[in-house]
Amino acid sequence: MPQLRIALAQVNPVVGDLPGNAALVVARTREAVASGAHLVAFPEMVLTGYPIEDLALRRSFQQASIAALEQLAATLQREGLGDAAVVVGYLDVRDALVRAGTGGVPDAAATPAMAEPAVRAERDARTAPAPDPLGTPRGAPVNAAAVLHAGQVVARYAKHHLPNYGVFDEFRYFVAGTRPCVVRLHGVDVALLICEDLWQDGPTAQVRELGAGLALVINGSPYELHKDDSRLELAARRAVEAGATLAYVNMVGGQDELVFDGDSLVVGPDGSLLARAPQFAEHLLVLDLDLPEGRSPVAAVISAAPLPGYAPMPRAAIEPRLVDEAEMYAALVVGLRDYVRKNGFRSVTFGFSGGIDSALVAALAADAIGGANVHGLSMPSRYSSQHSQDDAFDLARRLGAPCRSIPIAPMFDAYMAALHLTGLAEENLQARIRGTTVMAVSNQEGHLVLAPGNKSELSVGYSTIYGDAVGGFGPIKDVPKTWVYRLARWRNAEAQRRGEEPPIPPGSIDKAPSAELRPGQQDTDSLPEYDVLDDILDDYVEHDLGATELVAQGFDGALVEQVLRMTDLAEYKRRQYPIGTKITMRSFGRDRRQPITNRWRETAAGTD
Amino acid sequence: MPQLRIALAQVNPVVGDLPGNAALVVARTREAVASGAHLVAFPEMVLTGYPIEDLALRRSFQQASIAALEQLAATLQREGLGDAAVVVGYLDVRDALVRAGTGGVPDAAATPAMAEPAVRAERDARTAPAPDPLGTPRGAPVNAAAVLHAGQVVARYAKHHLPNYGVFDEFRYFVAGTRPCVVRLHGVDVALLICEDLWQDGPTAQVRELGAGLALVINGSPYELHKDDSRLELAARRAVEAGATLAYVNMVGGQDELVFDGDSLVVGPDGSLLARAPQFAEHLLVLDLDLPEGRSPVAAVISAAPLPGYAPMPRAAIEPRLVDEAEMYAALVVGLRDYVRKNGFRSVTFGFSGGIDSALVAALAADAIGGANVHGLSMPSRYSSQHSQDDAFDLARRLGAPCRSIPIAPMFDAYMAALHLTGLAEENLQARIRGTTVMAVSNQEGHLVLAPGNKSELSVGYSTIYGDAVGGFGPIKDVPKTWVYRLARWRNAEAQRRGEEPPIPPGSIDKAPSAELRPGQQDTDSLPEYDVLDDILDDYVEHDLGATELVAQGFDGALVEQVLRMTDLAEYKRRQYPIGTKITMRSFGRDRRQPITNRWRETAAGTD
Repeated sequence: MPQLRIALAQVNPVVGDLPGNAALVVARTREAVASGAHLVAFPEMVLTGYPIEDLALRRSFQQASIAALEQLAATLQREGLGDAAVVVGYLDVRDALVRAGTGGVPDAAATPAMAEPAVRAERDARTAPAPDPLGTPRGAPVNAAAVLHAGQVVARYAKHHLPNYGVFDEFRYFVAGTRPCVVRLHGVDVALLICEDLWQDGPTAQVRELGAGLALVINGSPYELHKDDSRLELAARRAVEAGATLAYVNMVGGQDELVFDGDSLVVGPDGSLLARAPQFAEHLLVLDLDLPEGRSPVAAVISAAPLPGYAPMPRAAIEPRLVDEAEMYAALVVGLRDYVRKNGFRSVTFGFSGGIDSALVAALAADAIGGANVHGLSMPSRYSSQHSQDDAFDLARRLGAPCRSIPIAPMFDAYMAALHLTGLAEENLQARIRGTTVMAVSNQEGHLVLAPGNKSELSVGYSTIYGDAVGGFGPIKDVPKTWVYRLARWRNAEAQRRGEEPPIPPGSIDKAPSAELRPGQQDTDSLPEYDVLDDILDDYVEHDLGATELVAQGFDGALVEQVLRMTDLAEYKRRQYPIGTKITMRSFGRDRRQPITNRWRETAAGTD
Repeated sequence: MPQLRIALAQVNPVVGDLPGNAALVVARTREAVASGAHLVAFPEMVLTGYPIEDLALRRSFQQASIAALEQLAATLQREGLGDAAVVVGYLDVRDALVRAGTGGVPDAAATPAMAEPAVRAERDARTAPAPDPLGTPRGAPVNAAAVLHAGQVVARYAKHHLPNYGVFDEFRYFVAGTRPCVVRLHGVDVALLICEDLWQDGPTAQVRELGAGLALVINGSPYELHKDDSRLELAARRAVEAGATLAYVNMVGGQDELVFDGDSLVVGPDGSLLARAPQFAEHLLVLDLDLPEGRSPVAAVISAAPLPGYAPMPRAAIEPRLVDEAEMYAALVVGLRDYVRKNGFRSVTFGFSGGIDSALVAALAADAIGGANVHGLSMPSRYSSQHSQDDAFDLARRLGAPCRSIPIAPMFDAYMAALHLTGLAEENLQARIRGTTVMAVSNQEGHLVLAPGNKSELSVGYSTIYGDAVGGFGPIKDVPKTWVYRLARWRNAEAQRRGEEPPIPPGSIDKAPSAELRPGQQDTDSLPEYDVLDDILDDYVEHDLGATELVAQGFDGALVEQVLRMTDLAEYKRRQYPIGTKITMRSFGRDRRQPITNRWRETAAGTD
């Protein structure tokens, strides 16, 4: 059987940074070639970053992506890396693909996969991307993969299956391809697939029909808790279906609300796991494969002859999976670190209240960018307990974070003299003075502001808009309160396991949660216990169940109606909340789109 | 030729209010029947309101919509309105349609259009709605229309063409139908279409093939400047294509960022305009039509015999179109009024700065909900000019709006003593003290807060997040600054034409725009002249042109790069800005989706 050494480059591109991402490809290809790899694969849209959202529709960016791809092929050749076949994802447009397919690329006649447009010419009107109401002509964007070799683009593939659910809007952006893409490299037929192509029926069956020996899937597959489990199961099933070895390379790193977990892997034609990269870290996964000799009639031939036999590398590692808490914590660290770094910040600031939420955010931030870059602000009012202030400074000490105290009484008194507020207005005022103070420090010193709110309070609106909700990024906005505790305890235990001081003060974990905006206030004055609340919210927010279904599960009807009503009414606050890392199946981001003006109220009595 | 009296009910439903919307249908049907109408048509998804966004995916809401439809049919019959055929849009699910088509409805055998599922059974995986990653089974939602008669649902239609561009995400929500729906009423064949079906090629050609005499299009077509022109042109062209009279009924009113302009109309088979309803007002457009006798083999027959001849009503009115300024102003008033009203508010508050933006917003608010419900707040600082404070109170007097002065110096001094701010941080502090003050008044007194920012400043980030950007709704967030002046001048001229006092103080219109956050500050210190800025922004934001294309149009390269860079960098602020009425082709809402983390910068030198 022919041999092939493949390298899966689990890298972290930046949206819009075409030169930087191309440099990343060159650097990792150099590393792969130094390891003797013949085929190097990069993630979906690695050249542009992913997801690029409406940038896909801008002609200047489309042209820049196409130009950057051609330039990348030339650079790889110039750098002496042209012998390797390099697979990269990028943004193309249908017109350019058609041009390329009808003569724009050498050896078109010898490469049947390219002799016709890679996307269907007769686009259904329903799948047309964004018709411009003013009739401006516009090319149809394509989520594409290219095979680069010897300074040329030798094959192109257009993603067949476009996800348009959850966080994905790919029908908005792309036209779908219909043609397979197979390249023959050292006698082995390699079929390209892109991400959703693996999740839908069809493409892997086609790989079997084409008789390809390797299905190479490039991905931009965002993290969700437990997704690694379903991913492995899927890859194994599809490999068996394809009757081929399946190599899966995924992106790593954060992009706005998404974080990509890597978890690249290779599965044999029998579904057995051959190699697996770590989660949440850049990695080059190199391994040797014995693959059947290719005989596909549609293959674009790079090199027909198998390589002379060589001694394979030692068996590649199968990295163990992280436990749930470690996985989620790593996702939050990477999501935060990349938002900070990719947006040009070096430091963060926010209120250290002494509570569990800000303590967890501080620990995450210290792990992401170093404790010295986390600027804590203790902003006590007359209702702040001494133990909370002590916990805030204890937290700072544990993290090596600078922390200062800015009492808000003078500002509070100035407002109260002018406004004479009572009740909720007075409580919110305190939170907003803190919000203004944090923003002032940010403006003066250049730190990114973090919003420390969790998913439970964001759900029911238990936060003050323009108060504790200020910030450029909300690191734990998708973390339910019960998970905030789990993560805090896990992080402290992890520190103890390593012989380090736990970062989170025990007092912040153990005391009853309180916003401390009036004397003796506790969260349970307004909300049910968090374990009950989170159960209801999981059903309602993540699984979209109605009140009747919740009651059928044993929840109290009045409580269900109250929680769902609070959640619906808080939609306007969530819409103005900073973005933050998605870690559940449905976060308060692109994946949950509710109207603000909405008179529908779930009632436990049922709907008829 | 058979006669038919039709009524197009241009109504204003509320998203999620199934009982309220059903009551609206009953009331307008009663009115139509009193006018002798045989066929009464309501807009797309009138029963649920539109757009319902992710509510479409919730099973409890789907079931409630289906139940409400059945109940509506029964109610109409019980109220003695069962003789009229009533066409309503609603949310259905594919499973229910299949059940209804295979026996759930009387006379299924006699109504071929219903004998098979109205949507295709073999759904392409690419068009599948939101597959649930956890495999939860879920019905496929349908954007549907039903014909109600004699207490029954006698026909159902599923929208064929699903828009998935601009503000629309209908591939996320719905499966498309493929079967036509024709009902025979008093001997006339009426073919149903829904909104986008008219904008795409195919459906009207099918109407001709089916030989229907009337194409009835129910719509939820959002307003954009100049859309009424393209709508009439399209309707005329499609009527000629169909060889049939075309009746177009549209929704009116505001729903979050969208406003529907009504503009319902009827066009003859020769493309001539027969009747047109007013813009931005509820209306029942009743008219008599002479239509060919129906012979379509697929018609569901309600009544085969033509009516005995009767004397037709006088020719229906063709309401004149509004001039651009009047149209945009009306859209903003309706969008604001409905956000206030549908969310249960009665009054609004915001800062009266004396500037043009807050003056226009105040005039809009006074026209929407009455000047007495507009609570102005003058919040002078040491940099506020006397003439600005005078203009603020003059504005309030002209509108009959209560206005109070809350000097911010005491709060400002308290913060400065604690924080020692300079430069931009000091400027932003003033804006944020005002934001906190407005929110405090809102919390204490229950007014909705309006954010008075315009599109030009929102584009380039010339605003303070959590400062002047606070609010639940931004009435002019999609209005470029040059149009702010046009609207203000138009509104004042309109008042003079009516013999009323102009609402906007001339001083607010005539003085050079300034944020008054430092001595002598003017907008032009940081920004180009607004006419130049708005020209660039129109090309960049609305038309997605790149820097090279802008320079080719004659703009200065350095200026273009600066404006585009400012626009890109302000994305994080826009993401947290309140929603507001869309009036242009591309607003900062659902229709413009840009990444925040984005290193792509347009350069005038070109992209290669």
